[in-house]
Amino acid sequence: MTQGHGRTRERAERDTPSGERPGLVGVLGGMGPAATVDFYRKLVEETAATADQEHVPVVIWGDPRVPDRSLSLLGGGEDPTPHLRRGIQALRRAGCEVLAVPCNTAHAFVPALADEAGIELVSIIEVTADALAADGVRAAGLLATSGTLRSGLYAGALRRRGVTALEPGEAGQRQVMAAIAAVKAGHAGPEHGRALEDVARTLAARGAERIVAACTEIVLSLDGSGLPVPLVDPARLLAGRIAALARRRAG
Amino acid sequence: MTQGHGRTRERAERDTPSGERPGLVGVLGGMGPAATVDFYRKLVEETAATADQEHVPVVIWGDPRVPDRSLSLLGGGEDPTPHLRRGIQALRRAGCEVLAVPCNTAHAFVPALADEAGIELVSIIEVTADALAADGVRAAGLLATSGTLRSGLYAGALRRRGVTALEPGEAGQRQVMAAIAAVKAGHAGPEHGRALEDVARTLAARGAERIVAACTEIVLSLDGSGLPVPLVDPARLLAGRIAALARRRAG
Repeated sequence: MTQGHGRTRERAERDTPSGERPGLVGVLGGMGPAATVDFYRKLVEETAATADQEHVPVVIWGDPRVPDRSLSLLGGGEDPTPHLRRGIQALRRAGCEVLAVPCNTAHAFVPALADEAGIELVSIIEVTADALAADGVRAAGLLATSGTLRSGLYAGALRRRGVTALEPGEAGQRQVMAAIAAVKAGHAGPEHGRALEDVARTLAARGAERIVAACTEIVLSLDGSGLPVPLVDPARLLAGRIAALARRRAG
Repeated sequence: MTQGHGRTRERAERDTPSGERPGLVGVLGGMGPAATVDFYRKLVEETAATADQEHVPVVIWGDPRVPDRSLSLLGGGEDPTPHLRRGIQALRRAGCEVLAVPCNTAHAFVPALADEAGIELVSIIEVTADALAADGVRAAGLLATSGTLRSGLYAGALRRRGVTALEPGEAGQRQVMAAIAAVKAGHAGPEHGRALEDVARTLAARGAERIVAACTEIVLSLDGSGLPVPLVDPARLLAGRIAALARRRAG
């Protein structure tokens, strides 16, 4: 720590209006960037605000250089843990007390890192499982990365609430991964939306009462209006939970 | 500085993959939140990337509690300087080397604060004035907050490049401020877009060859396709400049 940094910090603290409670929300984003934009937009929408000053104060650590989470979970890729730790620690140092991560796959890594940093994680997976259980859903179909499925994160969270998780077959899962990659590459077309819809229909035919867009890129390609059962958007649910939490802390 | 913070920082630095150059872009946002979402989306769009890892790493300080910039410039409101300084210092401490601020009015305050923090500001106003001059524009109409107009930021930057700035009359400016307030309150309707279009038409009739959406909320209400002259979007230009800068640094 240089002396210059120390002076900077002191000055910043001195200048903070007195009596103000930061209540900053940290967003570990960039995985991918378009999904983080989508989450931030939903957070703004979910906040009942009539002026800038009533919105949730957030710090977004948008580092897209985090190695592919799914590849790592499938055994072939670089461990993203050091990158994720760096972002979470930076958010903690910036004064964030609550952490939101709009990347489902990253949840195979972040709970332990949030504990380590002393920041409260609002898990996109737990929030989604809560919502499905509250709706009385008995079986839910998962559109997720292969890494998320392999990790068993959703299956476990749903099982604990008495909800059965249905996963696509091998061919369907390949289509899901192709659509996610297309969104990340910025060239998702209607064919990717149609492919996701086909996979979702198959899950519904197998008994899924909801389709969970369990990768934050899915809703950027699939709108859900043509599905026989409702599409559940975990990013929207996470945004709603964070907005509610911020309201409680402010109130 | 507590010992706990010191340990956290050491661990974060140790875990950073060696040899990696951060090149982080800091975004001082939240003014307002919807405009920051819009800027982040444009930054993602302006980046030619085929995978998450090729996108620009950003840290967004989205503190919407900054007192109204326009009110302060007009003499009636709380000074936003301490809040802006706090955000800029936090971004600098997080490792950001370049600063983008998707709020035109805040540019009456941020250049001095960026200098103080030792971070390079890419000014939305200078980038826009550069683009107008490069296009050979001789007169540009400004849709901006009353604070931005009062500060003379655009008028000065344009004058230095031989471009005349045209401002709405009193009644037109009231309509501009009403539309900006409606966007910030989340209830902008088509009537606000039409009002902005009327003001823009009057500026074009007075000789404006371009209409500058010189408040980041304007493009959220006015799409520009119905105007007799092109609408210039400073947030898009700033996003493009930041993406180009990131490419140069990476290359």
